[in-house]
Amino acid sequence: MQETVLVGVDWGTTNLRAYAFAADGSVRAKTARPTGITRMSVPYGDLLEELCGELGAGADTPALLCGMVGSRQGWIEARYITTPCTLDGLVEGLVSAPHAPRRVLVVPGLDSQSGSAPDVMRGEETQLLGLMDGVGGAERLVCMPGTHCKWVRLAAGRILDFRSYMTGEAFAALKDHTILGRQISEGAVHDAAAFAKGVGMAQEARGRGPGGLLNLLFGVRTLGLFDRLDPAAAASLMSGLMIGAEIADALGPQPPAEPVVVVGSAGLSARYRDAAEALGVRTTIADEDIATRGLWAIARAAALASR
Amino acid sequence: MQETVLVGVDWGTTNLRAYAFAADGSVRAKTARPTGITRMSVPYGDLLEELCGELGAGADTPALLCGMVGSRQGWIEARYITTPCTLDGLVEGLVSAPHAPRRVLVVPGLDSQSGSAPDVMRGEETQLLGLMDGVGGAERLVCMPGTHCKWVRLAAGRILDFRSYMTGEAFAALKDHTILGRQISEGAVHDAAAFAKGVGMAQEARGRGPGGLLNLLFGVRTLGLFDRLDPAAAASLMSGLMIGAEIADALGPQPPAEPVVVVGSAGLSARYRDAAEALGVRTTIADEDIATRGLWAIARAAALASR
Repeated sequence: MQETVLVGVDWGTTNLRAYAFAADGSVRAKTARPTGITRMSVPYGDLLEELCGELGAGADTPALLCGMVGSRQGWIEARYITTPCTLDGLVEGLVSAPHAPRRVLVVPGLDSQSGSAPDVMRGEETQLLGLMDGVGGAERLVCMPGTHCKWVRLAAGRILDFRSYMTGEAFAALKDHTILGRQISEGAVHDAAAFAKGVGMAQEARGRGPGGLLNLLFGVRTLGLFDRLDPAAAASLMSGLMIGAEIADALGPQPPAEPVVVVGSAGLSARYRDAAEALGVRTTIADEDIATRGLWAIARAAALASR
Repeated sequence: MQETVLVGVDWGTTNLRAYAFAADGSVRAKTARPTGITRMSVPYGDLLEELCGELGAGADTPALLCGMVGSRQGWIEARYITTPCTLDGLVEGLVSAPHAPRRVLVVPGLDSQSGSAPDVMRGEETQLLGLMDGVGGAERLVCMPGTHCKWVRLAAGRILDFRSYMTGEAFAALKDHTILGRQISEGAVHDAAAFAKGVGMAQEARGRGPGGLLNLLFGVRTLGLFDRLDPAAAASLMSGLMIGAEIADALGPQPPAEPVVVVGSAGLSARYRDAAEALGVRTTIADEDIATRGLWAIARAAALASR
């Protein structure tokens, strides 16, 4: 068996995933824990040693951590690097964890200062670096669905800019804590026709301003009142409306020439793909191992796993 | 003292207000109860008799009820009348409450079928009829802030069309049930500068689509992360952003020639006035007695209070 030359950890808010890398960059072992930074009960260093032990890493194998572990609420803050940003720029922002029993570097997040408010990501930058190999030089738009979906412009080895949309979290809050919930049956399965209808409503409303969403959402209530929406389909309509509105705004007036790269869980990626294609935009769904490829790319560039 | 010729009740979801009208349309007595349709513990007829007794109305004085009491969940359903609608059209839709110990008529709500989903109001139609006397023949835009803000076009005695925005309810759900709440201190007073900044962000984003709101809201989080937003001011910024976005969408590309008439509680009306004026639109705030004027106008047109 190949020796482990690097332990990489994607350490988020609620969970973590840890990987043992061989010298050729392949993942020779992995593990996971439900101990994101909001659920820690032992010191970070202790948990990292436990992970390294489980992964069969030697006492002097370095570790590279990305995700919320580098936030102000995490182990040690690795401050945001402002976009546009290259792999080398990110490597310059790596921060050493103090008093660690081995060499531990933490990946910084990214910020964008191009809008009326700043924007931030933490963890996604590592996935993006993992994507870059496959992307080539042309400008590409990347969609990273989740609680706070990120839309990112990449080109020629650079992360150019990005924007976050709090679609996932807003959907849950509006469904569970407004009158819209009354139209929605719990536990309903995905309804592709209702989802497509929601995307169509978003498409029709493209010429309206941001406030239009507060009116369109009320339609989930009124379609139900007029018996024009099955409660079992209402959550799918609302999801289609919100995801469709997000995508239409993220694409802007000039849809991209190249397919949008979608990075996320299989279920959510399929929804974004369906909505984007209904809006006339092609997509490709990224491989699932881009986080590990990103950790490896950063480690190599930082000469962290040079043996 | 003048005789009571009509009892009018504005009977909503959580509260009711009841009025005794004299033959000249003046209100000679009034009362209120925290017993909206979701809080009833006695039959509707019994509570109405209690109100009539308290207001000194005789046993044969008719009653006119508006609001959610006419919804499917209320006393008796008075079905929506589709806009455009006149006073006479509304009167045709009045419904008698059965088995009532006196003559009781219930005012129907209105619906609009001009958008991609229907829209509804119930209770506001009576306020609008109360407004009409003062409005004259020119087309006017009316803004009725609340949990679900209504924007209504009126002209020459007709309610032309309307749209609802769930701004108030969405604000509460997003503030209390998403990450945005972490940036917001509870109990903070209104911050006019932060509210104006939020309106300005909405103004800047006018050219974006409905999904833009899901991105702009994330700015409440990130401005806080970068220490560019005092937690005590964050709720006001978020409110300005959402109300500003709503108003910009409701006004559309061609702002109205006449001042927008704002109908609502004093505090909320002032916020909408401030935001509208920041967006370059004049406003007038309606008198507080328009609901009683509307009840009286409907009663007269229905020959309900003809003595």
